[in-house]
Amino acid sequence: MKRISEPTVGRLSMYLRVLRQLEREPVSTVSSEELARRVGTTAAQVRKDLSFFGTFGTRGRGYDVADLIAALRRILGLERSWGVALVGAGKIGAALFGYRDFERQGFHIQSVFDIDPHKIGQHWGELRVRGDDELEDALLSEGIEIVIIAVPAEAAQAVTDRVVRAGVRGILNFAPVNLEVPDWLALKNVNMAMEMEGLSYALASRGRGGRTGADKRSA
Amino acid sequence: MKRISEPTVGRLSMYLRVLRQLEREPVSTVSSEELARRVGTTAAQVRKDLSFFGTFGTRGRGYDVADLIAALRRILGLERSWGVALVGAGKIGAALFGYRDFERQGFHIQSVFDIDPHKIGQHWGELRVRGDDELEDALLSEGIEIVIIAVPAEAAQAVTDRVVRAGVRGILNFAPVNLEVPDWLALKNVNMAMEMEGLSYALASRGRGGRTGADKRSA
Repeated sequence: MKRISEPTVGRLSMYLRVLRQLEREPVSTVSSEELARRVGTTAAQVRKDLSFFGTFGTRGRGYDVADLIAALRRILGLERSWGVALVGAGKIGAALFGYRDFERQGFHIQSVFDIDPHKIGQHWGELRVRGDDELEDALLSEGIEIVIIAVPAEAAQAVTDRVVRAGVRGILNFAPVNLEVPDWLALKNVNMAMEMEGLSYALASRGRGGRTGADKRSA
Repeated sequence: MKRISEPTVGRLSMYLRVLRQLEREPVSTVSSEELARRVGTTAAQVRKDLSFFGTFGTRGRGYDVADLIAALRRILGLERSWGVALVGAGKIGAALFGYRDFERQGFHIQSVFDIDPHKIGQHWGELRVRGDDELEDALLSEGIEIVIIAVPAEAAQAVTDRVVRAGVRGILNFAPVNLEVPDWLALKNVNMAMEMEGLSYALASRGRGGRTGADKRSA
């Protein structure tokens, strides 16, 4: 399999999201032009992105929605479920725990950890929030593959180091800090403050009469 | 002012974050090498990014931390405060409302809207959650410049259309959907599910023996 760039993977996610909407409408085939329009890219880009994975679609007829959904799910690793732990039971942690899209896509949060004695022992759905002293043992014994870090910035690197030592392979980081991780670990950052600053940059630079590099279609 | 690419703006945000950490340590000057190391890029990239905005730093001595913070705040539009409204008082909305980094950076959430009768009238801090029938009037009369959209995917485009008609210039979108907006509007998307799919892609493709395009330093 060829190396696929991160922006391409991001577009594959967007195609999948649009295809699921189409399936619900219900629509059974879609052209590269229509898929491009809904995602905010070009038909040529759609065809190029999907060409990485073999031939989908029929000339003049478009892509079969159900087939393309199945293929994208396989490519993105969504045809299986992933064991996920959440570290940080604050407001962001609670929002992520209740985020239906994670569960729907096979990301099953099966453990929640915090250091706050008031939070430890709380029941979140069928889970009990556990103390961070149980972190390494739980990660190892429960086969956790992905950890969501939702702790304050100043605590994030220490949590990361512990998670790395426990052999976790993927981290989704919500702390506004640049984590240092080994090469073999997959790390994604969700930085809401940075996105907000991208907005204020765009608005302020327009106000100054400058052009902006803000990309309306960014994800 | 030259056009600045979106990745550059993102790195400026990261430099600012690291510089604030340095200021707290406290450190008063920093080299491009050290700044690069903490952000996860190269010294050449740091120098190139900062060269857009004139000359900072002294050869052989590095950048003055306080001066560079002031310059980045000005560039990113953070030396003023922004009027922000939040549409969607669910779990994600509540987490964003409590997100201290927004307030700290001048993004002041001054109105919250929802359509749920059980949420309308709730007190969030000093605010009262209002019904969406008040949305347009409030946006216009309160000088709201940025709207955070934290509603379900199926409701997001309709909210966007209303916000656009009310003249709002910037949207931070948390709904997992590609919004259609006019060219003059600045839009940023925070798509947690997409980041998670980037992780599962990276893990699954490694498991398949393929290389991965996941970028550890992505933000």
